[in-house]
Amino acid sequence: MIITCKKGIPETEINKIIQTIEAKGLSVHPSKGEHLTIIGIIGDTTILDEKTLEANHYIDKITKLSAPYKQVSRDFHPEDTIVDVAGIKVGGKENIVIIGGPCSIEGIEQIDRIAGQVKEAGATMLRGGAYKPRTSPYAFQGMQLEGVLAIEAASQTHKLPSVSELMDVDKVEEFEKHIDLVQIGARNMQNFSLLKAAGTMTKPILLKRGLSNTIEEWLMAAEYIMASGNKNVILCERGIRTFETYTRNTLDLSVIPIVKKKTHLPIIIDPSHATGDWELVESMSLAAIAAGADGLMIEVHDTPECAWSDGAQSLKPDTFKVVIEKGKVIAKVIGRDI
Amino acid sequence: MIITCKKGIPETEINKIIQTIEAKGLSVHPSKGEHLTIIGIIGDTTILDEKTLEANHYIDKITKLSAPYKQVSRDFHPEDTIVDVAGIKVGGKENIVIIGGPCSIEGIEQIDRIAGQVKEAGATMLRGGAYKPRTSPYAFQGMQLEGVLAIEAASQTHKLPSVSELMDVDKVEEFEKHIDLVQIGARNMQNFSLLKAAGTMTKPILLKRGLSNTIEEWLMAAEYIMASGNKNVILCERGIRTFETYTRNTLDLSVIPIVKKKTHLPIIIDPSHATGDWELVESMSLAAIAAGADGLMIEVHDTPECAWSDGAQSLKPDTFKVVIEKGKVIAKVIGRDI
Amino acid sequence: MIITCKKGIPETEINKIIQTIEAKGLSVHPSKGEHLTIIGIIGDTTILDEKTLEANHYIDKITKLSAPYKQVSRDFHPEDTIVDVAGIKVGGKENIVIIGGPCSIEGIEQIDRIAGQVKEAGATMLRGGAYKPRTSPYAFQGMQLEGVLAIEAASQTHKLPSVSELMDVDKVEEFEKHIDLVQIGARNMQNFSLLKAAGTMTKPILLKRGLSNTIEEWLMAAEYIMASGNKNVILCERGIRTFETYTRNTLDLSVIPIVKKKTHLPIIIDPSHATGDWELVESMSLAAIAAGADGLMIEVHDTPECAWSDGAQSLKPDTFKVVIEKGKVIAKVIGRDI
Amino acid sequence: MIITCKKGIPETEINKIIQTIEAKGLSVHPSKGEHLTIIGIIGDTTILDEKTLEANHYIDKITKLSAPYKQVSRDFHPEDTIVDVAGIKVGGKENIVIIGGPCSIEGIEQIDRIAGQVKEAGATMLRGGAYKPRTSPYAFQGMQLEGVLAIEAASQTHKLPSVSELMDVDKVEEFEKHIDLVQIGARNMQNFSLLKAAGTMTKPILLKRGLSNTIEEWLMAAEYIMASGNKNVILCERGIRTFETYTRNTLDLSVIPIVKKKTHLPIIIDPSHATGDWELVESMSLAAIAAGADGLMIEVHDTPECAWSDGAQSLKPDTFKVVIEKGKVIAKVIGRDI
Repeated sequence: MIITCKKGIPETEINKIIQTIEAKGLSVHPSKGEHLTIIGIIGDTTILDEKTLEANHYIDKITKLSAPYKQVSRDFHPEDTIVDVAGIKVGGKENIVIIGGPCSIEGIEQIDRIAGQVKEAGATMLRGGAYKPRTSPYAFQGMQLEGVLAIEAASQTHKLPSVSELMDVDKVEEFEKHIDLVQIGARNMQNFSLLKAAGTMTKPILLKRGLSNTIEEWLMAAEYIMASGNKNVILCERGIRTFETYTRNTLDLSVIPIVKKKTHLPIIIDPSHATGDWELVESMSLAAIAAGADGLMIEVHDTPECAWSDGAQSLKPDTFKVVIEKGKVIAKVIGRDI
Repeated sequence: MIITCKKGIPETEINKIIQTIEAKGLSVHPSKGEHLTIIGIIGDTTILDEKTLEANHYIDKITKLSAPYKQVSRDFHPEDTIVDVAGIKVGGKENIVIIGGPCSIEGIEQIDRIAGQVKEAGATMLRGGAYKPRTSPYAFQGMQLEGVLAIEAASQTHKLPSVSELMDVDKVEEFEKHIDLVQIGARNMQNFSLLKAAGTMTKPILLKRGLSNTIEEWLMAAEYIMASGNKNVILCERGIRTFETYTRNTLDLSVIPIVKKKTHLPIIIDPSHATGDWELVESMSLAAIAAGADGLMIEVHDTPECAWSDGAQSLKPDTFKVVIEKGKVIAKVIGRDI
Repeated sequence: MIITCKKGIPETEINKIIQTIEAKGLSVHPSKGEHLTIIGIIGDTTILDEKTLEANHYIDKITKLSAPYKQVSRDFHPEDTIVDVAGIKVGGKENIVIIGGPCSIEGIEQIDRIAGQVKEAGATMLRGGAYKPRTSPYAFQGMQLEGVLAIEAASQTHKLPSVSELMDVDKVEEFEKHIDLVQIGARNMQNFSLLKAAGTMTKPILLKRGLSNTIEEWLMAAEYIMASGNKNVILCERGIRTFETYTRNTLDLSVIPIVKKKTHLPIIIDPSHATGDWELVESMSLAAIAAGADGLMIEVHDTPECAWSDGAQSLKPDTFKVVIEKGKVIAKVIGRDI
Repeated sequence: MIITCKKGIPETEINKIIQTIEAKGLSVHPSKGEHLTIIGIIGDTTILDEKTLEANHYIDKITKLSAPYKQVSRDFHPEDTIVDVAGIKVGGKENIVIIGGPCSIEGIEQIDRIAGQVKEAGATMLRGGAYKPRTSPYAFQGMQLEGVLAIEAASQTHKLPSVSELMDVDKVEEFEKHIDLVQIGARNMQNFSLLKAAGTMTKPILLKRGLSNTIEEWLMAAEYIMASGNKNVILCERGIRTFETYTRNTLDLSVIPIVKKKTHLPIIIDPSHATGDWELVESMSLAAIAAGADGLMIEVHDTPECAWSDGAQSLKPDTFKVVIEKGKVIAKVIGRDI
C-alpha cells in the first residue's frame, strides 16, 4: 500500500502516520520528494482500512498494491481447484462441463423432457430455475419448492447433476438437500448475508458476477463464501452492464484468462443471459471455449415461444447439440475435452 | 406495446400473433408497410411477457411504450405522497429533511454524542449503520443488535427519528421494533426477497438506487415494496457506477425532476456515498436542494480520521451546519424550507 | 417509427401531426387507447428528425423501429462485401486475415525487421503507426511522413499490404499514395470531417469502434464513409469503456455476429488495444476466430520492453506464431481458413 | 510513480530497472517485502512512459501518483485563470456567464431574433451552431460559413459575444476572424490535431468533455491546447454516457468542485445536451449554479417544435428568463452574481 501525502504535510504528521502503521506490525518506507511525499507499506495491508486513512486531511490518496483477497488468490493456492459436483469434476484440465436446461422449471413433465433432450445432445449437468429474480413483482416468480423437487427428480432420472438459484437464506436447507450446484445470482452477488449462508453449505456454489461488479468485487464475494468455510466455488460470467443496447449485456470474455491468472477457481460462461438473444449464443459459446472457459451454461427449451420466461434467449435442443459438437473440436486446440 | 415483425413474415403468422393477444383482452392494431409490419397493442400490456413474445422467430423486436410500474406511477396517483417518519413529514411541499450521522454506529456514547451535534447543526433525523455491507469479509461488519439499540436510545434522547440499513429478512422484526426509517441499501436493491419483506413492515422504507440500476429498475423495486403492502417508500439516489475514477460514483441529480415527473414518491440525495469525498459534499448538497430534492442524507463524524468506516466522506459537525445554513437560502428560491 | 402521444392530447393536435407526416409522403396509422394514443409511421422514416418531433409538447416519445443506416445495411445489400486490400481479400468466406506489426514505427530498420518476423509467423498484412493519437501532448507523437515512407518500403519488400492510422484531413493525399488500408482510430470515429474525407479516397478504410460508441453509431460512421463514395469499409472492434479496471477496455466479441447480421461489411478484432495486456491476447484472439471474425490485428514487437509505445500489449513474434497456428485449427471448425 | 514488481524478480533485474530510471535524473526508492517488492520514483515522472515499463515481464504494474498535466494544474498556477471573451470575464469570482441561443443557426433573421430574446432574458453570450456534428450523414449539417457570418452579425447587433463549434482544422482562420469563443465539441475532445490547431488561435477555447472521457483525459486535452500556446481555455461539462436511458446523458455535476480543486481554469455546464430534455434544464441549471459553476450554456429557441435540430432540449425565452432570475438568488448564496 502507498500513502501519497498532500503537499506541505508537516514532519510531525508524517511521523504520526508512520507510528500508527508500525504499531500494527507493518514495515513502513517513507520517501520524500520535491513535489510529493509517499509512504510505502509492506506486509499484510488487508488489516488497514484505506478509507479511514484517507480521512486524514494530510493524506491525498491511498493506493493498494496487493489484491484484497486471500483464499481466492492463486498466490496462496497455486494449483487449480477442481470442484466436484455430484461426481462431475469442474476446473483444471478436466473436461469442459456443459450445463443445459430451461430458464424456469415449468412442471415435472417439462423439466424431465428437456433433461432428456439436453442429455442426448451431450450436456453433463441440468439447469432450471425454481425461484426466479424478476424485475417486476407481477411477473412469474417460479414454481418454488415444487420446482426444486421437479428438477431433483429429473436430475436423478437422467443422471445429470442439478443447478438452481438460491435467493433466500431461509432456503439454504432446502437447497442443501435437493440441489447439487447452488447458484448465487448476479443481483445477489453482494447480498453478503446470502454469501455467508452459502459459505456454511456442503454443496458447491456457482457464483455469478454482478451486472456491474468489477472482477475484484466478484473475487471478494467468492472470498466471503470461502471465509465462511465453503471452498468449492465456481465463478460464472454472464455479461456486464454497459451503454450498448443491441445486446442485453456485454459478455466480458477477457475475465477467463484474468480469473485463471489471479485465482485457482474454475470459471464458466453463461452466453444466454449475457446476450439475451439465442442468435448470438452459438458464436459466444465457441468463443468462450476458445478462450479457456471450464464450462458453459446455456438455456435450452424445446418450445421457446411458449417458455414462461426468457424464451428469446433459449436454444432449441438440436442447435444446442451443434454447439457442443463444434465446441469439442475447439476444445482440443487448447488441450481440453468436452 | 409495439411488435415489429421480421421482413417476410407470412400472413398466417401475423394472424396467429393477433389472436393470441386479442385473447388476453387487448386491442390490436396491425400496420403493414413495404419494409416493415408492426403490430400496435393498446391496453394493460403489463400482462404480456415481452421476452416470450420475442422468442417467436418471426418477431424482430418488442418495444414497450408504457412504464411497467403502476402503484409507483404518478399516472395512477397524481398527488404527491407525503411519508411520515415518526412525525417528520417527507415529500410534497413539506420541509426538506436533513438526515445526519455517522456511517457506522461505534458505541452508545459515540452515536449519542454525534446525535447531539447533528441536532444542534439543524438535522431532523439521525442515521447510523448497525449492519454494514462490506466488500471484504475481513472488514468491520457493524455492531449489529447492540448498534440498533444504541441508535434507538440516541434517537429518543435527541428526538431525532432514526435511519438504519436492514440487510436480512430475519432482522425485519428487530427493525420494525427499533428503527423509524428502514433503509434498503444499494447492493440489495434487487434482493427481491428483502423487498417483499420490507413490503410487510409498517415502518417507512428508504430505498437506495443500485449502483448500476436504471431509474426504471429502481421504480420497479419500489413497486415490489408497494405491491407487498407498504405504501411509504422514499427513494434515495447515491451515485451510479461509471467509468470515472476521480469520484467513487457519479451522482445523478437529474433523477430528481424525473422521479418527480414519473412518480408521486419523495426523493432524497446521499452526496456522501455518491462522491466518497467530504470535499465534494457541500457543493453536491446545495446542488441537490436547488434541483428539488426532498431531503439530504449526509455522513457526519466529529473525528473522521478515527471513524471505523468511511471517514473520508464524513463532514465534521461545523461544516455540516454551514451546508444546512446555505441550503436554507437556496430552498427558498424554489419555494421550500429546511 | 412510433409516436407516443401524451395523455389528453386534443384531437386537433393529433390531426396536425398526422398531416405534417403525410405531407412528407409517409403512411400514418394512429391507434387510440384508454391510456395511450400512438401513431405508427410506415415508410422511409430516415427523412424525419425525431428530436424535432419530440419538441412538440403533446408528444411523449418517439420510438425508432428501423435502423437509421442504409448503405451499410444487409437489408439493402444481402451479399457479403469482400474488401480487396492490395490483393488480399477480406470478408465473406475468404481467409481470415492476420495483421501484425508494432504499435509505432520507430525507423526503417525496425519496421522492416518486424515485417519479416510477422510474415514468417504467418501474417498477411503489416500494421504500424506513423501518426499517433496520444493522451499526453508530451508523449511521442509518431515519426509522421518518415514513418509512412518506412512502412511503405517494408510493405513492398515483404509483400504485406500496409495498415496505418490517418488522423488529419490534410494527410489524405499522403495516405492515398503510400498506405494500402487506411485506419480511422477509435478517438476519431465521430470526427465527421475525417469520415467524409475518407469517403473520397480510393483506398479501403479500417474503421475502429469508438471507446464508448454504440454499434448503431459505429455503423452510422461507416454510413458517412459510404455516403461519401467509398464502399470499401472494414469494421474493427477494439474494446469499449466500462467500469472494469483490470483490463484497459472490455472487448465486446458479441459485435461479430451482430455486425454480420445487420451489415454486409467485414469485421476484424484488435485484441491488443482492447485488453492492453499481452497475456490476454492469445485467448482473446482465438475467441475472436471462434466467434466468426474476418480478421485479427495484433501488435507484435521483438523487444516490447524497448518499444516507444504500448510495449505492454505487444506479443513477441514466436507467441504471435503460436496464436496463428492454433487459430488455423479453430477457423476450420467454423468453415474458414487463415 | 510506483513500480510493483512480480514475485520472485531477481536482484539483478531490480538493479537494471533502478539504473534505467536513475539515468533519467529521477530519485528511486526501492522497498522489499515478503510478498512484494516496490520501487518508488520521485521527481518529474511525466518523462517516463508507463506502458513501456509495464512491458518488462518482471513488472506487475505501474501506479501513477501525480497527475500527468502541468499547465492545467493548480499546483503550478495557484490563482484562478480569468478568461476574457470579447470583454466578458469568465472564472474566479467574476459574474456567472449565461450563454443562450439555438442549437443550429437557421438564418440571419432567426439568429438575430433569438439573440434579442436571450439578451432581453439576461444572457451575456450568444451560442449557435454553424457546423453541426450529426450522427447521420443524411441529417442537416449546418449553414456553415453563412451561419458563421449570421451569428457574427447578431453578436454585433446585440453586443453578445458569440460561441460556435469548430470542427475542422481548415476552418481555424474563419473562426479566428468571426467567432469570439471557439467551441471544441465532445466528439472531438480527443481529436488531437484539432486541439493543437486550437492551441495556435488567439481566441479563447470552450472545451467540452467527451461523452466517455475521464476528467483526467479532459484535462489532458486542455493541456494539449495550452501546450500549443493558447492559455485561455474554459472547460464545459455536457453529460457522460452511462447505462441510464431516461436521459440522453448523465450530467456529472461533481466535476465542478473537482475541476476547481485540480485546475485554475473556469468551468461551465451545458444542461441542454446533458439531459436532452427541456423539462430537466431548469433544475439542472440551478443545481449547477449551486455547485459553483462559472457559467451555463443553454439552448433557447422561440419555436422549438420547428427547430432544425434538437428542439426537444430547447427552452423558450420566457422559461430561460425564469432560470436566470432564480439563478441570481442562488448565486448570491455562494458569493457570486449573474
